[in-house]
Amino acid sequence: MAPQYAPSLRSRLAPMLLVLQIGFILIYAFYIEIESNVNVYGITFSNFYAEFQNVNVMVILGFGFLCTFLVRYGFSGSGFNLLVAVMATQWAIILNGIESWYYRGKIRIDLKSLVVAEMCAASALISIGAVLGKTNPVQLILIALLEVSGFVLNEWLLQTLLKVQPLNSIMLLHIFGAFFGLTMTWILFKKGAEQPFEKEKVDRKSGLFSILGTLFLWVFWPSFNSILVDNHTPGRRLGAVFSTYLALAVSAVTAAAVSSLSSPKGKLNPIHLQSCMLAGGVAVGVSMPAVHQPWEAMTIGFTAAVVSTIGFRYLKTHMLLAFQCHDTCAVLSTHGLPGLLGWLAHLLLQLKDYDDPTTAIRFAVFHICCLLITIALSLAIGIIAGLLLKWHFWRPPQDKKCFDDQAFWEVGKQNVIFEQLSG
Amino acid sequence: MAPQYAPSLRSRLAPMLLVLQIGFILIYAFYIEIESNVNVYGITFSNFYAEFQNVNVMVILGFGFLCTFLVRYGFSGSGFNLLVAVMATQWAIILNGIESWYYRGKIRIDLKSLVVAEMCAASALISIGAVLGKTNPVQLILIALLEVSGFVLNEWLLQTLLKVQPLNSIMLLHIFGAFFGLTMTWILFKKGAEQPFEKEKVDRKSGLFSILGTLFLWVFWPSFNSILVDNHTPGRRLGAVFSTYLALAVSAVTAAAVSSLSSPKGKLNPIHLQSCMLAGGVAVGVSMPAVHQPWEAMTIGFTAAVVSTIGFRYLKTHMLLAFQCHDTCAVLSTHGLPGLLGWLAHLLLQLKDYDDPTTAIRFAVFHICCLLITIALSLAIGIIAGLLLKWHFWRPPQDKKCFDDQAFWEVGKQNVIFEQLSG
Amino acid sequence: MAPQYAPSLRSRLAPMLLVLQIGFILIYAFYIEIESNVNVYGITFSNFYAEFQNVNVMVILGFGFLCTFLVRYGFSGSGFNLLVAVMATQWAIILNGIESWYYRGKIRIDLKSLVVAEMCAASALISIGAVLGKTNPVQLILIALLEVSGFVLNEWLLQTLLKVQPLNSIMLLHIFGAFFGLTMTWILFKKGAEQPFEKEKVDRKSGLFSILGTLFLWVFWPSFNSILVDNHTPGRRLGAVFSTYLALAVSAVTAAAVSSLSSPKGKLNPIHLQSCMLAGGVAVGVSMPAVHQPWEAMTIGFTAAVVSTIGFRYLKTHMLLAFQCHDTCAVLSTHGLPGLLGWLAHLLLQLKDYDDPTTAIRFAVFHICCLLITIALSLAIGIIAGLLLKWHFWRPPQDKKCFDDQAFWEVGKQNVIFEQLSG
Repeated sequence: MAPQYAPSLRSRLAPMLLVLQIGFILIYAFYIEIESNVNVYGITFSNFYAEFQNVNVMVILGFGFLCTFLVRYGFSGSGFNLLVAVMATQWAIILNGIESWYYRGKIRIDLKSLVVAEMCAASALISIGAVLGKTNPVQLILIALLEVSGFVLNEWLLQTLLKVQPLNSIMLLHIFGAFFGLTMTWILFKKGAEQPFEKEKVDRKSGLFSILGTLFLWVFWPSFNSILVDNHTPGRRLGAVFSTYLALAVSAVTAAAVSSLSSPKGKLNPIHLQSCMLAGGVAVGVSMPAVHQPWEAMTIGFTAAVVSTIGFRYLKTHMLLAFQCHDTCAVLSTHGLPGLLGWLAHLLLQLKDYDDPTTAIRFAVFHICCLLITIALSLAIGIIAGLLLKWHFWRPPQDKKCFDDQAFWEVGKQNVIFEQLSG
Repeated sequence: MAPQYAPSLRSRLAPMLLVLQIGFILIYAFYIEIESNVNVYGITFSNFYAEFQNVNVMVILGFGFLCTFLVRYGFSGSGFNLLVAVMATQWAIILNGIESWYYRGKIRIDLKSLVVAEMCAASALISIGAVLGKTNPVQLILIALLEVSGFVLNEWLLQTLLKVQPLNSIMLLHIFGAFFGLTMTWILFKKGAEQPFEKEKVDRKSGLFSILGTLFLWVFWPSFNSILVDNHTPGRRLGAVFSTYLALAVSAVTAAAVSSLSSPKGKLNPIHLQSCMLAGGVAVGVSMPAVHQPWEAMTIGFTAAVVSTIGFRYLKTHMLLAFQCHDTCAVLSTHGLPGLLGWLAHLLLQLKDYDDPTTAIRFAVFHICCLLITIALSLAIGIIAGLLLKWHFWRPPQDKKCFDDQAFWEVGKQNVIFEQLSG
Repeated sequence: MAPQYAPSLRSRLAPMLLVLQIGFILIYAFYIEIESNVNVYGITFSNFYAEFQNVNVMVILGFGFLCTFLVRYGFSGSGFNLLVAVMATQWAIILNGIESWYYRGKIRIDLKSLVVAEMCAASALISIGAVLGKTNPVQLILIALLEVSGFVLNEWLLQTLLKVQPLNSIMLLHIFGAFFGLTMTWILFKKGAEQPFEKEKVDRKSGLFSILGTLFLWVFWPSFNSILVDNHTPGRRLGAVFSTYLALAVSAVTAAAVSSLSSPKGKLNPIHLQSCMLAGGVAVGVSMPAVHQPWEAMTIGFTAAVVSTIGFRYLKTHMLLAFQCHDTCAVLSTHGLPGLLGWLAHLLLQLKDYDDPTTAIRFAVFHICCLLITIALSLAIGIIAGLLLKWHFWRPPQDKKCFDDQAFWEVGKQNVIFEQLSG
């Protein structure tokens, strides 16, 4: 075991967690109450609950185990993911309720609020993927709070200025999270990090844990894309489930083909495959309102997997060497590019349906504005977050401690009972 | 591979399992029938089934993988957990139906019976956590049958003598299971076991498997606490889900803060975190009937995590050295203390609601009696179980064979096809 | 890392996947539409969706991780499982709709179509268990497409010629998949393979991953057997859930007893236990229409576990040495024998109910014909598939490359960012 004391945890993480948590409890005590009219959004608790649990599994188990691929960073990957997810969810519940608090003095929450809050948390978890391993948990919590604030602000702007549907604005979480994360990791880049980190490695067993997380995401993604689709039009929800399932299926197949085609030895790369087989779910989620036929979803899944796999194979290194942007979990090719592709597919499919060129142009302008606002805000808040995190007060880990659990966790083959004596 | 023959399995475990299983089949053949009126408890099969599966995942995958943290005891941890769970569930279905059998000659079972039986099994799995690694599977099965019998007797006493609501009495499973297990491990303590067991160790990969089990429990705990809440009052069930989710979220954050504050090196301990982030779910489960506001649940979660983490850090070693009580999975701080805290929170929250001092005192006396009966019974049956298990007839494993799969399993890098020839 | 180039992937797998996938997209574009009347089979989307997800978890996570038991074959086990599952599902949706396409020109799909298609995929995954590790992914995809075609043809024959209920014919998937796989592995047998493969091994950690897959299957099997049971008769679905749960519980207990009784050292074998504790689910699934009492399901589970465990212990080696049939995942004892037992139990339970000998004999003849058609077709198509796969065009892996991820995957402790440079 590394003998060194962890500088950032006791004096930074613990006080911050305690202060934030007690603050949240106080806010919840004064302003939050549970909506007792459970039928308020047309579907009963029992029908909604199973899908909520699917999303919950994705956020906690899916993202958590996806981040265990680094061979010496498994505890941090899964543990910090949980911490970030629960802080972001509590914070998002508050932020999403500000409007209702402003008008009624109270925030009423139901199961849907929790789902929406977990989706905001998912957006924070995506952006954290870009800086994973190079930050300490204090920084991760700060990132999550800033990212969720920015994302909720973006939703509010889109819904207020452009009258975007809530479902459409929330599905931009992939784009917002990815570009926020990329900006931040670009700002945080330190000289010398073009060299590969010594411990940024994957092995057989950590790879399998990561596949487990990926498969959780893959299996439950249809719930993620369909849970907020309203049930009034019969078949809309079924359509969302089908589109997502088929897009994911096509993604997995295409990612395997492109991965072996683009490999120097003609082999499959497990990490590529993991990221890229999720690309279809991202793209079809963003373009969901315009997808009406199975083949449309399948074509989107196909294109997303091609873009994502080629992006992973070539862009990741070039981003690092040319733009000094070190993207640990490849959020650019997993969420960023497929998200943009989904946005484009939404535009094209919608334009196809309009006969009248005026309406079509009006829609295109509106749709481009949505994207520009989202990207501008994610870049702006990403820069703010990055500059804030550069402050040495947060005690970021030294380079040689990056990607290593030992910086934060009591690890090593230790005795279970006596760990506090010998550890 | 260890050349030694496993003395306890062929001559003890196999006959016991076969006799018990055939006995169960005979009892089921004569006395058990399926309730065909599926609407009997006001909710339909389809609505109830998803939550039943969540509880099922917790019992089989959650507890099973939680117990894989010991580096050389993974097959036993997950395998014996399954054996114990299914024996205890079958036995609990019979015991829970005795009253109906007495009056009607038949036991009618529905999905709710299965859920209640799995909760009794969960209580047995908790108590087994205290003796894990130091017992053989024959002993584990006996413990499970005795514990379930004691727990069902306790429920019956509370419901008959004190008119306790079924839901309230069943949620005492954490307290009953923990104190039963602690008594038993205290009785089973052997001289010399103050020394750390050589093989009682955790490493990176076994730690990750254990985190997987913990996260299954964490994610699905809202179902565990809400499934038996009746659906007649709108919003009760949603309230139970929210309270549990928030308590667990606060628990996870608080456990991380307290774990790093109490560590000599200021680091997080993965095993602490795993146990203690579940403390909120335990405490809020026990106090569920009196929790009406989100902040109440959050405060309970906060206190439970503080108590549990400090208990884990300091009590576990002292229990061993001062009281000769070796508690493998720290059930005292994971289930015992948070359970007691939940009981106390229930008392305080309920007292707060009473205007009339007489009613308040009457409730307090009633509530204290519940606890005393539960603890007295758990200690008494724990002593009986402990003494029974000391009998050498069961062939407990020698100290040097403790915490080692090789005592019971054909392990080692073996060829898949030819294991029966070379093994 | 092995320096060698993977011959089968870039020039065979990638073109095949791309051609098939684009072909599927075209077929879906022209012929498939989503059924918007979501109430068509009497249960609503929301009620059905949770169970669909359970089946989905079984197919992707359950089968996927079950196949990770081979110590050097984890990426292939889980990754190829996903590829095969999604190709087989897309293909099965098309084949199952051919009749509707013939009459109406369009194939209408709903959530039930997807469930049925995933069950066909499960049947293909079973047969792949027999050849796992000795084939390349190109061969696996071909096998899956042929197996699904054969299985759908078998269903159509049974339903057209013998008027078998759809539910009854689909549950023969265990028998069809197992015998198809066994025939194929017998045809594919190469001289010299009586020797154990050098890399066909299991260790502690790969064993735990495999237990995870097994437990996913075990936990969600009640959904697999009950999801297609119609909900019109109240309690039929609850009965199916209960029967499966109890059969699986009894199976797990019995498999443990028989495994330790039949071991030379009296120890438990983790791989036996994993396969054999699922035998009850297989057997009770096949005999479901005739199982009405819990004890019947339990007795079937008991017998299935005895047959399966003894089959695993003795038959697997003898199949190899006497019949030159190398069965990697022991599909004969996991699916084949328990499936036949379930068929027999169905016959006996049904005969017991008939008073009239003429009806009884008629039913027996009908039931025997079902089995004979199924087995004849599985053997015939298995032989065709085996002969097709022997063709060297598919570039099967050499013997020393069998059971090794390195033949297909970029593995080894590699740096995450730079893998395409250094790998």
